[in-house]
Amino acid sequence: MNSKLNHAVAICDPLELAHPDSFLDVQVPYPKALPQDVIVRVEAVSINPADMRARLRKKKDNRINVLGWDVAGTIVEKGNEVSDHFQVGDAVYYAGDINRSGGNCSYHAIDSRLVAFQPKTISVEDAAALPLVSLTAWEALFEKLALAINTNLTIQDDEPTPSLLILGGGGGVGSMAIQLAKLVPNLTVIATTSRKETTEWCLKLGADHVVDHSQALAPQLSKIGYPEVDYILICNSPDTYFDILPSITRPFGKICSIVPFLQSHDFNLLMRKSLSFHWEFMFTRSSFSTHDMVKQSEILNRISELIDQKKIISPRVISLSPMNASNIRKAHQLIASNKTIGKIVIVNK
Amino acid sequence: MNSKLNHAVAICDPLELAHPDSFLDVQVPYPKALPQDVIVRVEAVSINPADMRARLRKKKDNRINVLGWDVAGTIVEKGNEVSDHFQVGDAVYYAGDINRSGGNCSYHAIDSRLVAFQPKTISVEDAAALPLVSLTAWEALFEKLALAINTNLTIQDDEPTPSLLILGGGGGVGSMAIQLAKLVPNLTVIATTSRKETTEWCLKLGADHVVDHSQALAPQLSKIGYPEVDYILICNSPDTYFDILPSITRPFGKICSIVPFLQSHDFNLLMRKSLSFHWEFMFTRSSFSTHDMVKQSEILNRISELIDQKKIISPRVISLSPMNASNIRKAHQLIASNKTIGKIVIVNK
Repeated sequence: MNSKLNHAVAICDPLELAHPDSFLDVQVPYPKALPQDVIVRVEAVSINPADMRARLRKKKDNRINVLGWDVAGTIVEKGNEVSDHFQVGDAVYYAGDINRSGGNCSYHAIDSRLVAFQPKTISVEDAAALPLVSLTAWEALFEKLALAINTNLTIQDDEPTPSLLILGGGGGVGSMAIQLAKLVPNLTVIATTSRKETTEWCLKLGADHVVDHSQALAPQLSKIGYPEVDYILICNSPDTYFDILPSITRPFGKICSIVPFLQSHDFNLLMRKSLSFHWEFMFTRSSFSTHDMVKQSEILNRISELIDQKKIISPRVISLSPMNASNIRKAHQLIASNKTIGKIVIVNK
Repeated sequence: MNSKLNHAVAICDPLELAHPDSFLDVQVPYPKALPQDVIVRVEAVSINPADMRARLRKKKDNRINVLGWDVAGTIVEKGNEVSDHFQVGDAVYYAGDINRSGGNCSYHAIDSRLVAFQPKTISVEDAAALPLVSLTAWEALFEKLALAINTNLTIQDDEPTPSLLILGGGGGVGSMAIQLAKLVPNLTVIATTSRKETTEWCLKLGADHVVDHSQALAPQLSKIGYPEVDYILICNSPDTYFDILPSITRPFGKICSIVPFLQSHDFNLLMRKSLSFHWEFMFTRSSFSTHDMVKQSEILNRISELIDQKKIISPRVISLSPMNASNIRKAHQLIASNKTIGKIVIVNK
């Protein structure tokens, strides 16, 4: 087994994306399964802004580094302590662990507590688009903002119906967040976009309203009857919005960001309305090996059910094949353009 | 009625606390009840850091301003729309509304939706110490940090028992927070203090551990077996602690502050562990007339029950009498010293 070739796409020196060697086709060792690991034959991966941020952090140490944290593939080997519900031959998917070598390769080792069964009714490339953005949107909406997918929000007669604003609705996380938020009864979902294509995409996914984030938000929100919203999910540049958050959020409102700030801000601005600010970082559970890291497996199994019940769709929009340095470089360039809709998947044919 | 004298203690020009005219004995008009108001004969008030901050914000406009947001007294008049469950003669207490004239006076008008019945088993001066700090601690613990007073926290076998760190346990809010947090089953409550007297006070109120906030916290927390805690309530100078929050908080931990920052901070530090930061400002409900402002009445009625059931005690430590400029100035000086334990009450004899 260990003599098998393992093709991977790696980064080495930190080069400009335009440079043909910014990604390299290499051969890396066949992975070794730790007790809780499965080894997966990678059939499709997707590329996320997280890959871009990891690439920009790469040190000039002349060592290669394999990115890629969204894998769909087949289990080919199990560690000694892996639960019996996983078997060799199972079709699985996962977003993995940013502290381990990534999935842009032919064979990949991953902690089985982060792994779930693929949806049965969609292709492997549609499956690969799901894990990281679904987990991020799920944890943000249902753990951080504490929305409830299964129960009606309690609404009293004198209370306006609750509303969620998704800043940046057209990207991968925004696309999943719109769909998952629409599973919450009585919740009004407002997404922001700046182009006709992304507006149509967000409406197709179920957004109740779309407003333009290249224009002032407050008057647009007032115009659609939501001068203040209860929940805000920030999927793009939180610095842009920070100063208007106190005026567009209701007292006791909750704000969640998945993107770091580029500068410091005066958080006292959020005090008068007793607002809450939540970080959602999908790799927290794997990075800290939390006691509940298996929740990511459970969430992805729920996502598979929702897909198979036709309640949500995969956000894959673009596929590239085969998995090689040239295509992964192309995917990174598309993400860097900030104009992508949904997700980009690389198929390992 | 309106010809009655209404003695009040007011501030006018922003003078140093040491100045004998920093507080003035004045006569103000007898208050007029708005439809939802009750008029209360003030029998005791307590002084909070909120009064001190309001005094420091006073503009040099040569107009008098009455502070005081913790009142215990008797209803003497009702507005047209006040619920029947309030009657003239009822003994009530409340923390009130920072945007209206305060309670440092003989007769005070207040929105009845913020008002509750005093505990039956304690003195009016012990009652006056309760509202603002109880509401702040209750909203922080049970609404913001989402602890549950009535149910066991769900603990799995492989999960450490949950823990709350109260930074600044000896003051008014800290004193109530320790007692209320101890009503949550399975929760370990750690308070910080810096003096022998406050340490003894916090242990008397039920704290499981007390550590010294004048020394490095991390090694002390490690020593008592809690290198990371799940919940943090900041009752004093949040700037002091901001940089260590990421290391002493568990992944997905929740931090709540009741005190504003003096400077900006890098909130990205809280991202890697997906932490949440919550503001608790007790005057949010009254300031924004939220649809649920009556919750403050409900919370205070719960506090009265807990007092009468001997499950918690009033944090009053010092009483001054009568209510006049000299005694209110003395109370402000005590609070400014940062050495008070529990609460200071002024009795209107």
